[in-house]
Amino acid sequence: MTTTDNRKMLIGMQLGNGYGAQVTAWRHPSVDVENYAKLDAHVRYAQKAERGKFQFLFFPDSPNQTQKHPADAPQMTLDPLITMAAIARETTHIGMATTASTSWNEPYNLARQLKTLDMMSGGRIGWNAVTGSDPMGAANFGQEVADSAQRYQRLHEFVQITQALWGSWEEDAWPPQRETGVFADLNKVRPINLRGQHVASRGPLPIPPSKQGQPVIFQAGGSPNGVEVAARHANVVIGAAFTKEDAKAQRDRLRNAAAEAGRDPDEIKFIAGLMPTVAPTVRQALDRRGFFVEPHIRQRVSYLGMMLGTTLSEQDLDSTLEGRNLRANPSDPRSQRALELAQEGWTVRDILYHGIIDFHPSPIGPAEVVADHMQEWFEFGACDGFWVSPSLYEEDIDIFVDQVVPLLQERGQFHADYEADTSRGHLGIGKQYGLDPRLQ
Amino acid sequence: MTTTDNRKMLIGMQLGNGYGAQVTAWRHPSVDVENYAKLDAHVRYAQKAERGKFQFLFFPDSPNQTQKHPADAPQMTLDPLITMAAIARETTHIGMATTASTSWNEPYNLARQLKTLDMMSGGRIGWNAVTGSDPMGAANFGQEVADSAQRYQRLHEFVQITQALWGSWEEDAWPPQRETGVFADLNKVRPINLRGQHVASRGPLPIPPSKQGQPVIFQAGGSPNGVEVAARHANVVIGAAFTKEDAKAQRDRLRNAAAEAGRDPDEIKFIAGLMPTVAPTVRQALDRRGFFVEPHIRQRVSYLGMMLGTTLSEQDLDSTLEGRNLRANPSDPRSQRALELAQEGWTVRDILYHGIIDFHPSPIGPAEVVADHMQEWFEFGACDGFWVSPSLYEEDIDIFVDQVVPLLQERGQFHADYEADTSRGHLGIGKQYGLDPRLQ
Repeated sequence: MTTTDNRKMLIGMQLGNGYGAQVTAWRHPSVDVENYAKLDAHVRYAQKAERGKFQFLFFPDSPNQTQKHPADAPQMTLDPLITMAAIARETTHIGMATTASTSWNEPYNLARQLKTLDMMSGGRIGWNAVTGSDPMGAANFGQEVADSAQRYQRLHEFVQITQALWGSWEEDAWPPQRETGVFADLNKVRPINLRGQHVASRGPLPIPPSKQGQPVIFQAGGSPNGVEVAARHANVVIGAAFTKEDAKAQRDRLRNAAAEAGRDPDEIKFIAGLMPTVAPTVRQALDRRGFFVEPHIRQRVSYLGMMLGTTLSEQDLDSTLEGRNLRANPSDPRSQRALELAQEGWTVRDILYHGIIDFHPSPIGPAEVVADHMQEWFEFGACDGFWVSPSLYEEDIDIFVDQVVPLLQERGQFHADYEADTSRGHLGIGKQYGLDPRLQ
Repeated sequence: MTTTDNRKMLIGMQLGNGYGAQVTAWRHPSVDVENYAKLDAHVRYAQKAERGKFQFLFFPDSPNQTQKHPADAPQMTLDPLITMAAIARETTHIGMATTASTSWNEPYNLARQLKTLDMMSGGRIGWNAVTGSDPMGAANFGQEVADSAQRYQRLHEFVQITQALWGSWEEDAWPPQRETGVFADLNKVRPINLRGQHVASRGPLPIPPSKQGQPVIFQAGGSPNGVEVAARHANVVIGAAFTKEDAKAQRDRLRNAAAEAGRDPDEIKFIAGLMPTVAPTVRQALDRRGFFVEPHIRQRVSYLGMMLGTTLSEQDLDSTLEGRNLRANPSDPRSQRALELAQEGWTVRDILYHGIIDFHPSPIGPAEVVADHMQEWFEFGACDGFWVSPSLYEEDIDIFVDQVVPLLQERGQFHADYEADTSRGHLGIGKQYGLDPRLQ
């Protein structure tokens, strides 16, 4: 494998509940079970990621209780904006992007908090703008879920109003001028007067430009409405794909849509998901991951049967699937990988220990296995980088930073150190202050 | 003066824009003019207040640009919840209460952020629940201001839904039980299903109890609707009064209203405003304060004339008012004090330097003057304590802590050290988790 250009991959890290991306991580002996309710751990995990020179932390979020089973921890921090504030004070370079819904907020409030975070962090903030599509979330606001077109219309208005508010303090109206006694020229801190069908704001937002001007827009989700919004507004797309071919197709679609919207395709970065497990041997790595799989293995074994077109029960856990007539179920994109593992002769338990039912590709084994996966996808053009979901923050961030990152650096795939200290700088994207001028 | 009981006064401190409670404080040579946009200063000021054993910081707030004049700084921090997050991480004892509007938020979002702050701070958070009555604020949400009855109806619903959400994770469902593998018993993290005329939420809010259970409710403003809401829900009322007689009347009214609502009147604390200036001599104190008055002295001189029933212009600044026929204008409660100062023979400029047009009583001179004012009001039953608005955070907090606090401690008026580390502990108020049971 060779690099064909000087492009380096971006690395982000999912940061959620204080335990790990596995819902059962809270039970691991290395973990303080109260981390969900403390922020010391989140700050420490952010510092570990910064040691690895990751470009950003990514906070998933839901405006409702997501715990479905008594054994599982919620997959999000108590409140991502408050958590980012704590981390901003105790890190210096790493970017941070949070998910926040355009359905259950007001643009003025969210614009204000995000830009305050962007000020206090020295320009390191991003916002993953999503619509609210979960009835349980809607019910927390006394509402019902609107249809997709309505939700995306509101998102579209919301993002534009937010960006206009971010730009409503003109750049040359800061800093205050002690000599002339002018704190801010009020002709340069001006209303925006935007009114859509769903949301409106007069402005101005009384917050000066941050070191990067204003936060970066992230997007997630690949529905046609999502792609359209991302193509117009986003600089980063948090992706989900199980094969490099699918990832490349998603990335190409986004780049084409951005070009059609009049933007430089390099201004939109497609970031693929990754749930790696690293240990000196594959067997050790499987056992590391198995810890998190075991509590739910009974439910997963029957689902695996569905993926492979066969019937499986707990009794099959320690058997291989030799001699069975298997086929990859096309309704789940993970089925092909499950089939390969079955054909390699792994037991049902070990197929599940491979993380085959997890949300993202799960390379597992020595660090080289993970680095190879990342390099292969990156050089294939499948993505501009990865967002890594560590199973167990307490251990897996350090392992990744100490073992995978140096390999990627040696191979010229990942930067040796931060060359910038803002999110826009890390991402290599251009300046934007206020609304995109092409939309005005 | 003697203390008639063991009651000690409470002390809170206004913390706003990073400069001081005077809109012109940003121009002082001791100040970094960019403090509005940095949080280092706010954290440092909070630490100064904590050194003084203050019970709480109080954050004013407005959901709109409040700067009216190019020479003035806005009177609030960029975002108080984000600012409190930073301060929570870098202080250990001091409480923090922020103003947040029930008109322009959703209960679920605000309940979530406030309780997250309460978790991360170890139970030190309070919420000053206010309605949105400023058309400029309403316009930032595409709305108009509702009438007072509607606004307070929404506030009433909002506070109850918020408290119910705070209590929706039952106390014995925390912490997670590693041995049994139960993160949280989902029968004990339950919906609230509350729907009012204005706001609604299903819940639950997936946040466990904080060290103090849940945040403390503050209130401000003395309209009949405000008193009614405070009497039912608040533990602290942020007051404004220019005489101890008026303060006592307000406090008595609140205590009676609380008793009528079935509460112990000692569970509601009336906190009087104070804008002191301390220097070794009265002359030096006047000159300290004069720095902040001078930029607006032309406007203030004519207003002072109105307060005194005479006509004043800039030409009169350095004259006394001897021989004029003066009377205190009853439309402004500060007029009587202005008249006294005129009768004492101060020049117009020095009357204004006394802070006569400021928002709160402004004792000025050596530390004893300030301590005497506080002790006199407190022993008169005018208040349960004070919220101090330092003209210039950079200097005036330390001066107050080093000079006024020791006097109050020597006199047995103020505690020698923190005896608790939660806001409820500092305030000496009882436990409440979830809705007030009397309202259920």
